[in-house]
Order: sequence, then structure tokens, then C-alpha cells
Amino acid sequence: MEVNGVPYRTIRPKPDNPEVIEIIDQRQLPYRLVHEEICDVAGMAAAIREMHVRGAPLIGAAGAYGMYLAMLGIESEVTVGAVIRKAYHDLAETRPTAVNLIWALNRSIAALDHAVTIADKRRVALDVANRIADDDIDVCRRIGQHGLTIIEQAAADHPGRPIHILTHCNAGWLACIDHGTATAPIYAAHARGLPIHVWVDETRPRNQGARLTAWELANAGVPHTVVADNTGGYLMQKAMVDLVLVGTDRTTRTGDVVNKIGTYLKALAARDNAIPFYVAAPTSSIDWNVADGLDGVPIEERDADEIRFVTGIHDDASCRVRIIPADTPAVNYAFDVTPARLVTALITEFGVCAAGERSMSALFREHGFVPDAAASRTIV
Amino acid sequence: MEVNGVPYRTIRPKPDNPEVIEIIDQRQLPYRLVHEEICDVAGMAAAIREMHVRGAPLIGAAGAYGMYLAMLGIESEVTVGAVIRKAYHDLAETRPTAVNLIWALNRSIAALDHAVTIADKRRVALDVANRIADDDIDVCRRIGQHGLTIIEQAAADHPGRPIHILTHCNAGWLACIDHGTATAPIYAAHARGLPIHVWVDETRPRNQGARLTAWELANAGVPHTVVADNTGGYLMQKAMVDLVLVGTDRTTRTGDVVNKIGTYLKALAARDNAIPFYVAAPTSSIDWNVADGLDGVPIEERDADEIRFVTGIHDDASCRVRIIPADTPAVNYAFDVTPARLVTALITEFGVCAAGERSMSALFREHGFVPDAAASRTIV
Repeated sequence: MEVNGVPYRTIRPKPDNPEVIEIIDQRQLPYRLVHEEICDVAGMAAAIREMHVRGAPLIGAAGAYGMYLAMLGIESEVTVGAVIRKAYHDLAETRPTAVNLIWALNRSIAALDHAVTIADKRRVALDVANRIADDDIDVCRRIGQHGLTIIEQAAADHPGRPIHILTHCNAGWLACIDHGTATAPIYAAHARGLPIHVWVDETRPRNQGARLTAWELANAGVPHTVVADNTGGYLMQKAMVDLVLVGTDRTTRTGDVVNKIGTYLKALAARDNAIPFYVAAPTSSIDWNVADGLDGVPIEERDADEIRFVTGIHDDASCRVRIIPADTPAVNYAFDVTPARLVTALITEFGVCAAGERSMSALFREHGFVPDAAASRTIV
Repeated sequence: MEVNGVPYRTIRPKPDNPEVIEIIDQRQLPYRLVHEEICDVAGMAAAIREMHVRGAPLIGAAGAYGMYLAMLGIESEVTVGAVIRKAYHDLAETRPTAVNLIWALNRSIAALDHAVTIADKRRVALDVANRIADDDIDVCRRIGQHGLTIIEQAAADHPGRPIHILTHCNAGWLACIDHGTATAPIYAAHARGLPIHVWVDETRPRNQGARLTAWELANAGVPHTVVADNTGGYLMQKAMVDLVLVGTDRTTRTGDVVNKIGTYLKALAARDNAIPFYVAAPTSSIDWNVADGLDGVPIEERDADEIRFVTGIHDDASCRVRIIPADTPAVNYAFDVTPARLVTALITEFGVCAAGERSMSALFREHGFVPDAAASRTIV
């Protein structure tokens, strides 16, 4: 995407110094667009854990670049194995729910296995990370094209008015390398000149919708309105939503969708009001190893202070305020599970398919992709 | 309720000067317990509109006390009719959704009709307001007893562990005069020594759950945990909720429940997980005039700045921060509609009944209460 005419990726090796990885510190948005330089694997692990970078596809790529930074840090042949194992472990444990991270780390160490010298390992780790990033851009672009057909159909069904799309959290280009998953069809439709309007769930507690998705959409000129997370059901009751479109942090082989907490509530409301509910799901987010989303996927529990504190702007400066007493008990589950039965369809890079084992497996095999349970299993 | 050993009502004539109405300025909670003196009808209308007082039963009583303050302001016999009409109009338009306000104002002017002199009108208006407040306390107490049997049954079904109750917004004593509606059974169960734990939805955008319900429960010693509004579905998926218990701003004669935005989403999740969903509904919240909650009840749209700004504590002082850019479009619907089909039962002061025209009418008539459509119609 472009910001003020400058093309951006969310993560990349610095053009003038590829031993440093440049990210956008997304905690600063929408107030400031801040680049951050990550120089070692510990820095990358911290950036993922503390959500400087977030979004399933992006933390996959960040993990792979983290492995590359670990290779840069190797000082002796003797320690290579230990460094790889520690880097894998430290990166894998940063965020437990999104499967892309494990998937990317597994790709990285599989390739490292075939590299002999330290120099080879550095080159291979960088190649894998760059390929994951490049592939992700291509995958998102293709998801955009497949999703576009859905929006085009909705526009054909409702001529003369905008198509209203509700989204939750940020599955935008900030969550990926470019384009986004759930936003890719939106950007494609906007580029095609289709009239669209996006309802943006603010997405408490971290407000990724209000902070990131709204910023992205404003930057791209896409009409949008921020609402409290409580609002989507009412909008659907009042026929103010044509379709729901979200991303996923992990989708099981049976089509259960693990995504930002609150997604399930919107899926229920969509079903109750006969509104289609779509999930943009790149291959890298599918866990062929898990059948039951509720039992098989670890749900991250984050610091309850994310509930107790809100950061905003006061007198033109960033200011963190406590919104409930410090001793008020709070819990902060980060994801929930939308059962496959509530999902109208998955939008993958290979096309649109029902959220179910048979349809998913058939579509992926048809395109020469062999579902691989091992790809999403922790292997070091 | 008692706060630090001192018994409280949310609204009352000042003991030493009954020409002044004392309220709690609920915008200051949970940080400060601030009393505010309201001296004229304009002040009461502003206090309702700007939510110094809020909650359907409380704004009913506040409306009645507002009529009394209007009577105190009459300077000449000639203007009595105009003053009554203007006071009714100014108070009625403050908040459109809760029917208690219209119900209370109608009770007040019906009584004023029978009062001849200005002194009579002042006395009658105060009597009506005091009676509405006293009745509300009694009604809430009775709702507590009827709801207690439901919690007792849940406790009997799950011996040896707490009963987990999820509530949305604040239907506590702060929303009423005392006891609360949805909280009355909780306080009754706690007083009875039943082990309970309350999941408190923070209830964006105004955070009445996090600010008010959590404060109430902490004050009463009831175990509770604040969660983001997005969380309830996951808690229900994981069998961490035994029942949902909420209040209502207006329930139609067919049992559709208009309540704080987001209630509908929790009702859907409760149904999807076979968890009972109860609504504490005093007679004063039932609109016998409306059959269809979605078409027949005006849904208040509040200032979008309630989405854009959050007030909290920074450096021990109150601080209002902007959490999205000032030019980001936002909308702020305050209520949604839970269809009767999703409601397990209403808990009224007359007992527990199905949310449906026949059951509701039968229960109320059985207790000598004649459902009256006119009571909830604007009549001046």
C-alpha cells in the first residue's frame, strides 16, 4: 500500500543495510507512523509479543525474519544447533494462537537443515523470510480477487447504493505484508470503483479496528464508520450490513475459525439475520493438524491491564489512562472460535470454498497444494 | 445499599431541604462518589440527558422529581398549564428509549390533574415522585426474591462451585433507587451465602459495566471479573457462564427486550450454548403499547464522541483522551433489541414468566395489574 504516495511493506530488510529488519511499530498508529529497526532475535521476539507487529500473516513473516536475525548472531559453528533451537523456541512462544508463526518457523528450519555453513544458513534464512513475505503479498492479492467476485455480486444484487461490509479487528495490510486478507477484497472493490462502506468494529481491548483498520481505510480513501463492538448485531438487525468479512489467526481443517475475540458474536448475529459471513483464510492460517477449534487451539490470555488501561491523545501527547480501579479483577482472552457451521465460506488464495474438511481439502488438492498436518506442529 | 456503612439511594429530596433533589453524579464513579444538588427542572433534564443519572428505573424517578421541581418553579396560577406541558416535554425528550421515563411522567401529570392549587400540585408531584421511588425499591426487592430462586436452582444443580452469572451494562442499584433489577437476585443470593461470581461486560462506549457494576459489586463484596464486551461468547463456549442476567430499558408486550447495545449479541451466544438468558423487567419497563421491538421502539443515537474519547485516571487526576482521530467517522447507537424468542424468561416483581404476550398478560392480570397501553404513550 501507499501512505502519502510512498509504497510500504509492514516488514522488510533495510534497503541500505539488510542485516537490520525494519518494521512499523503499530502501537503508535494512528497517531504516528513510526519505523523501528530490529537487530536481533530477542528484539523480534519482543516486537511480536508486545505487538509492535501483529496479525497472523505478519507475525509469520516476522518469525522467519527473526530466524534470520538469529543466524546473523551466530558466533561459532559449535553453537549453531543450540541457537536455532533457542530462536525457534523463543519466537514460537511469543503468541500461541496464530498458526502462521509455527508454519513460518517450520519453513525456516526445514530450509536451514539443508544449509551447511553459517554463511549458507544466513542466506537461506533470509531467502525463506523474503519468500514468505513475497508469497504473502501474492496470496493476499489473490484473496482480494476471489473476494472481489463476492462484493461484485452483492453490488449487482443491490444496485444504486453502497455495499456495507462489517469487519472485526484488523485483517488489513498492517496484519500482513501488503493488501491484507479481509481488506484485500475491499481494496480490490474500491479500486474497481464499486461503492462500498465498511463498518469497523473498534475491537476492544486493543482497538485494532479503531486504530489500524480505520487508519488503513482512511489512507486508501475507503468510506468507513467506527462502531463499538456491541453495535454490529443492531446494524444487522436493521439491515445495515450486507456481508461480514474477517480474517483468521488459525482455521482448523474442519473450518472452525479462531479469530480475534468477539468474531463469534458477529458470526452469530450474521446467521440470525441471514447475512453472509466470510473469512479470508490464506493457506498459512490453516492448521491441518486440528479438527476441533474449541478444544484444539490454545487461546492466548493477555495481560488484564489491556482491559484496565487505554492509551489515547491528550493535549497533543500520548497519554495512558486507567479506566477501572487498579484492583478490579479483569481477564483478557484474545481469541474466540467461530464454528464452521456459522461460516458462509472461506476466501482462500485458491478460491472460495465451504468451511468444511471435504471442501477445503478438495479445493487445496485441486490446486496442487497437499494439506500437511506437520506444517503446523511445533517441531523443535 | 450501603457504601462504607452509609445507606444510600440514587435520588432523594435533601433531608434538610426537600426543595432540592440530591442525586449521585454517576459520571464520576468509580473514582469519586459525588452528590449533586438539582434545583430546577432544566437541571434535572440536563442530568438525565448527560447521564449524571441513568438506568431506566432511575430516569423514571428522576423524571417525576423533575416534574416536582417544575411545580416549585411556578410563579403564577396563569402559567401552570404551560409549565406542566413544557416540563413534560423537556423531560420526555431527554432519553427516547427507556419507557420508564414516559411512564413516570404520565403518572405525575395524571395526579397533577386532580390537584387544584399550586401548593397542592407541589405536594402531589412530590408525593408521586416519592411513591415511584419507594415502589421501585419494593419492586426491585421482589425481583430479587423471584430471581433468587433461579440462582438457588443453579446452585443446587452445580454443588460445590460458584454460579457464574454474566451481566451487561449496569442494571444495578445505581440504575434504580436501590437493589437494582438484574443485580437484585445477585445481591439476594450473596446475602443468602450462595457462592456466585459475576462476569461484568465493560459495556462500551460508556463503560457502565466496568465503572458502575464493578464498583457496586466490589462495594457489596460480590466476586466479579470485568471483561471486554467481545469476551462473553468465548466464556459461554467454554462453559464458564451458568446464566445471563440483564436489565431492560423497554420490553414490548410481546417480550422483545430493548436494552443496552450488545445485549442481543449475548442473547445469541447464550442460545447457541444452551445457557439461560434472563431479563429483570419491572412493570415500569414494559411498554404494552408496542408489539415489535425492532420497529416500535426509538433507538437513541448518542454523540459519536462517546466512541472517540475515553475518560480515565492519569497521575491521580481525571483525564479525557481521544482514542481515534477526531475526523474518523463513528456512530453510537445506544440500544439493541433482543427478540423474545431468545429470552428464557422475564423476572418481574410479580414472578418469573415467559417473554410472550400471553404469559406476560396472564401473570400481570393474575396479580391484579391491568396492562395499560396508555401508560407508555406520550400524552402531552
